[in-house]
Amino acid sequence: MKKLINQPDNVVDEMIEGYAAAYPGYVKVLPSNNRAVVRSFEVRPGKVGIVIGGGSGHEPTFMGLIGKGMVDGVPVGNIFAAPPPNPILEVTKAVNTGGGVLYMYGNYMGDCMNFDMAAELAAMEGIRVETVRVTDDVASAPEPADRRGIAGGFFVYKTAGAAAERGYSLDEVVRVARKANDAVRTMGVALSPCYIPQTGKPSFVLGEDEMEIGLGIHGEPGVERGKIRTADETVDVLLDRILSDLPLARGDRVAVLVNGLGSTTLMEMYIMFRRVKAHLDELGVNIHRSYVGSYVTSMEMGGCSLSLMKLDDELAEMIDAPADTPTFVQA
Amino acid sequence: MKKLINQPDNVVDEMIEGYAAAYPGYVKVLPSNNRAVVRSFEVRPGKVGIVIGGGSGHEPTFMGLIGKGMVDGVPVGNIFAAPPPNPILEVTKAVNTGGGVLYMYGNYMGDCMNFDMAAELAAMEGIRVETVRVTDDVASAPEPADRRGIAGGFFVYKTAGAAAERGYSLDEVVRVARKANDAVRTMGVALSPCYIPQTGKPSFVLGEDEMEIGLGIHGEPGVERGKIRTADETVDVLLDRILSDLPLARGDRVAVLVNGLGSTTLMEMYIMFRRVKAHLDELGVNIHRSYVGSYVTSMEMGGCSLSLMKLDDELAEMIDAPADTPTFVQA
Repeated sequence: MKKLINQPDNVVDEMIEGYAAAYPGYVKVLPSNNRAVVRSFEVRPGKVGIVIGGGSGHEPTFMGLIGKGMVDGVPVGNIFAAPPPNPILEVTKAVNTGGGVLYMYGNYMGDCMNFDMAAELAAMEGIRVETVRVTDDVASAPEPADRRGIAGGFFVYKTAGAAAERGYSLDEVVRVARKANDAVRTMGVALSPCYIPQTGKPSFVLGEDEMEIGLGIHGEPGVERGKIRTADETVDVLLDRILSDLPLARGDRVAVLVNGLGSTTLMEMYIMFRRVKAHLDELGVNIHRSYVGSYVTSMEMGGCSLSLMKLDDELAEMIDAPADTPTFVQA
Repeated sequence: MKKLINQPDNVVDEMIEGYAAAYPGYVKVLPSNNRAVVRSFEVRPGKVGIVIGGGSGHEPTFMGLIGKGMVDGVPVGNIFAAPPPNPILEVTKAVNTGGGVLYMYGNYMGDCMNFDMAAELAAMEGIRVETVRVTDDVASAPEPADRRGIAGGFFVYKTAGAAAERGYSLDEVVRVARKANDAVRTMGVALSPCYIPQTGKPSFVLGEDEMEIGLGIHGEPGVERGKIRTADETVDVLLDRILSDLPLARGDRVAVLVNGLGSTTLMEMYIMFRRVKAHLDELGVNIHRSYVGSYVTSMEMGGCSLSLMKLDDELAEMIDAPADTPTFVQA
């Protein structure tokens, strides 16, 4: 495993320093906590503060999404580890302008525990905090509420960020974010692991000719391991599982995200998208907007995920809204 | 080598189909040639047509950059192979609106030959074509005119695209593009190869603990192979070579691109950027705008490159201009 790093123990701090140095017009690190990254620009007083977060290693998510129409602040955890309550609280205080704060993050035990603790601490300081947990990973549990959050979180953050930017109240932003999360489903497939800088160990082991359907973004076991399939066959497997959980009818509208997990090329993602489009065309489902790229990664993991979000007029409006962040801009 | 593809022989055609299907508001494939990708939106009649191109495998470059403020059309070659004259000519005819067409591409023999041939054919059809070859790779030759084009081409395309969007004449766009190319220098470092889908073979071989400075984006030999260094040491090597070729004085302004070659993570790129910033701060050189991400790849190659562009007021204005393409948006 070769990486362009300095001391493995310092990768997260140095990454944050470099990121903040690259985009001073968007973000700054709080002097009180070097794991608390917040917007460096002003917003309208009373705008709901949007806070997302989680472990490092998923770049450009989370901190790459700080900017207009998206997210106000991100507490940054160690690699694949939830951020502690303290940076969450510091971010919360920094981004609250009186309208309250919404926490959104993938539904993992550590994140739930630490964000909940920070919410209690924030309440003691008089800041109202609400929470929406992302649960888009169809493979991770039968019950939607028990599922983990993976790449489909991008749609939830985008939607809530747009609602906050439009001046929606905290209750309204929460309503929209919940609706978004309920409308998103993701299925992933892994081909090769990532390597943790501090240990040099792979996040999981797969044979040279194997793929695993539903493997999580931290190497959590998936639902089916087997010989590698073609891109078209893989899309069909992913899409069938999504559609059995999120039935779509002729004339329905969706947003599509084909997400690379790290080392997967855009060439492969476009080839995957081609099949998604053909399949949805057959079903008479309209693709309202497409996203193809590495939005939620597991460092250099190989593989990709497919997310569909079923749109109503309100969700479509929020997905179409402009956004301007260091790693995601929509005109 | 595992890839999410179907038939290896079809990867380029299927990639183009998927890309065009994902972004119908930006691009379309010409009915006359399935390797000719052009803008699907209208532009002001007389706007200079910007055509860039080269082999596949460098996505999001080249076809990802078709959009407002950037590029009008892209002839697409096979993996790491120049596009033939015919798609170049078809793209040229499609994007010419009377103001003439500018070809820009990396200075490789196959590209030079085929684009020159297409330019002659276009001239026979009454279309004025000018050419600016990108020669930013410091490691590739002592004489600037002999050098190859790598990631710094992004700056040249961005600059020329902005000039064309502003209504500059073909002569003026050529002048700006040449000035941009003269002001850009790039140095790259490779850690691991990519694999050609049709052969399954790596593009080069490096030891488990080795890196190669100056290795080209198609595996061309570099200038120095040795043990892998830290991110900071690597940046210092790259920057020293750039600065010895592009002297910068206190108070100078630059645009910076830290470009991932494929499987390199944003984490690593931000850590690299951190050192670039510290180094330039010491020299009193101001970073006017930063770009960090995978802009010009070699499929899943590991490594990155550093590009600096020395800015005058005109180049800064063009770099700052808005752009809206499927893979690059600047507000």
